[in-house]
Amino acid sequence: MKKIKTPALVIKKSICLNNIKTMAEKGRKSNVIFRPHFKTHQSTQVGQWFKDEGIEKIAVSSFSMAQFFADNGWNDIMVAFPFNLREISTLNKLSEKINISILLAGNEPLPLFTKKLKNKVDFYVKIDVGSKRCGYKPESIIEIEKMLDLAEMNDKLKFKGFVAHAGHFYQAKSVSDIEPLYNKIIKKLQTLKNYFSKSYSDIIISWGDTPSCTVLDKFDGVDEIRPGNFVFYDLMQLKAKICNPDDIAAAVAAPVVAKYVNRHEIVVYGGAIHLSKDYIIENKRPVYGMVVFFTKDGWKFPEKPMYVKKISQEHGIIKMKPDEFFSIEVGDLIGIIPVHSCLAATHLKGNFYYI
Amino acid sequence: MKKIKTPALVIKKSICLNNIKTMAEKGRKSNVIFRPHFKTHQSTQVGQWFKDEGIEKIAVSSFSMAQFFADNGWNDIMVAFPFNLREISTLNKLSEKINISILLAGNEPLPLFTKKLKNKVDFYVKIDVGSKRCGYKPESIIEIEKMLDLAEMNDKLKFKGFVAHAGHFYQAKSVSDIEPLYNKIIKKLQTLKNYFSKSYSDIIISWGDTPSCTVLDKFDGVDEIRPGNFVFYDLMQLKAKICNPDDIAAAVAAPVVAKYVNRHEIVVYGGAIHLSKDYIIENKRPVYGMVVFFTKDGWKFPEKPMYVKKISQEHGIIKMKPDEFFSIEVGDLIGIIPVHSCLAATHLKGNFYYI
Repeated sequence: MKKIKTPALVIKKSICLNNIKTMAEKGRKSNVIFRPHFKTHQSTQVGQWFKDEGIEKIAVSSFSMAQFFADNGWNDIMVAFPFNLREISTLNKLSEKINISILLAGNEPLPLFTKKLKNKVDFYVKIDVGSKRCGYKPESIIEIEKMLDLAEMNDKLKFKGFVAHAGHFYQAKSVSDIEPLYNKIIKKLQTLKNYFSKSYSDIIISWGDTPSCTVLDKFDGVDEIRPGNFVFYDLMQLKAKICNPDDIAAAVAAPVVAKYVNRHEIVVYGGAIHLSKDYIIENKRPVYGMVVFFTKDGWKFPEKPMYVKKISQEHGIIKMKPDEFFSIEVGDLIGIIPVHSCLAATHLKGNFYYI
Repeated sequence: MKKIKTPALVIKKSICLNNIKTMAEKGRKSNVIFRPHFKTHQSTQVGQWFKDEGIEKIAVSSFSMAQFFADNGWNDIMVAFPFNLREISTLNKLSEKINISILLAGNEPLPLFTKKLKNKVDFYVKIDVGSKRCGYKPESIIEIEKMLDLAEMNDKLKFKGFVAHAGHFYQAKSVSDIEPLYNKIIKKLQTLKNYFSKSYSDIIISWGDTPSCTVLDKFDGVDEIRPGNFVFYDLMQLKAKICNPDDIAAAVAAPVVAKYVNRHEIVVYGGAIHLSKDYIIENKRPVYGMVVFFTKDGWKFPEKPMYVKKISQEHGIIKMKPDEFFSIEVGDLIGIIPVHSCLAATHLKGNFYYI
């Protein structure tokens, strides 16, 4: 890792491959489409590992990511974010070449939008299954029907089904809460699907979020899964007991730039613009990442956890245990498991290091 | 603003120019060097506005920024971040062409470092004046002396003075707390300077942070000021009563992608990777930005404040007042004063829109 000069995301291939394989096999066992969300890594290399596993359909969260992966040879891409009307020209450009699908989430001016469509586009209706972020409520059948009728007026738009993301599972108190909650939500989505299947025979339910896709063994009642974070996992997932330390495939490498013996703290080059300001609470205080030590072929977790306790734009402050403090020198690289790997990967894009 | 398709930073030139002029005049009045910190904007255009005001020296917080501004014709650049030993080759490359100065903040392996220096480099000693981030304590005269003796062994390193950043002023409870605290700190820095002036006759005290540089009328006891955030200000500075609404020069333009009448909320394309996850507390809850409405030549603040109440990677959720909710359509742009403009500008680099 001598080549690493500035904060970088170190990605451990063997763990990534294992995470991909596990999820792909689970998908096959449940006979669902596995459409991984690529916003977590945004990497050609990691994308290739998915391709090697036989994956052909992906989800992204912006048109710039869609453009990036289309340029990389992917040709079935869902932009899993409420469609941004201002990017209609990008949509028209992409839909000329690849199968791009979009999300409609509520109150888009449909006739105005469809008039500007140049090519056929698949769309999904976003359903809010409890995270209160966006989408129609599963009970809003009349509202959804009205919207579908408007969409029907233009033969360029093809309704493909319902998309749900249980964002609130990330805040689940316990892993055992997830399965009963999943079953309850799926029942509602099934009711929706059954109702609309009368008019649209081949619609599907697309389901996404790493906590449920990791915890559940089978995906009864859905047709597609779209987890993203599982490819790397992170401190948030570890804390929530969704993954084990050995499942984490990405760590930020941060150069040590100063150390202070009086407070047993080190300062690293690795701050808010690298790790993000996302945090978890440990001992009643926010922490922005957890320390690991790089080894020849990966990293190891110290016996007692140490955390990034404060960050500013470029600085990270780490409180060290005494033994570890004295073994670290200014100029060394320290590893940090990011709280939220999707954000760290976005910030460090272009600065990935594969081992 | 029809050209804006994706989240962008809208920069109001007249306010920027005014902020720059006010600070430059204040500096001239106090007869101090004005070395603005360019990490806030990282923009060629804004840099030019400083140049037009007669500014020749700047500070940045990374070597990549130093490289960027060196390529833009700046030739006196301080990298105001503890020197990262891993970037010695970048330092050597830059110091060939321009006057680059660095910070030493504590426990760098000096002989090892200086051996690799190819050109003369000015350095400052970072002093921790209370933010407990990095630097020597002002009382640590012996430690500093030891370090300077080591640096002396290599004639390529030239000691220029002390650098302080009162990061804790950003958390000052009241504006009136700042001046007495400043005076107390400056006394300590003066003691340091007086002591070391015997051996190093032309050393200076370089002082930076937007709160104190904005609030104080005169900069007694320092030789240089390095504020950065003042060029844009932001919600954090507004909340701390450091600036007025009319001083804020940057707002994030976020496309509205969905709206929900039952909860009077809109969803915008503008999330953690655009605004950052920095927050302030309003009514006991974290908020990630404040709503403004774009006008022909800028933006206006609504009568009652509205905030971004939740963000994820790409989404922002804004709770609207009823009247404003109904006047906003999906496809519109909404303005958001970011909590921390330096982070928003870093995330939106390359997507600036000047008005």
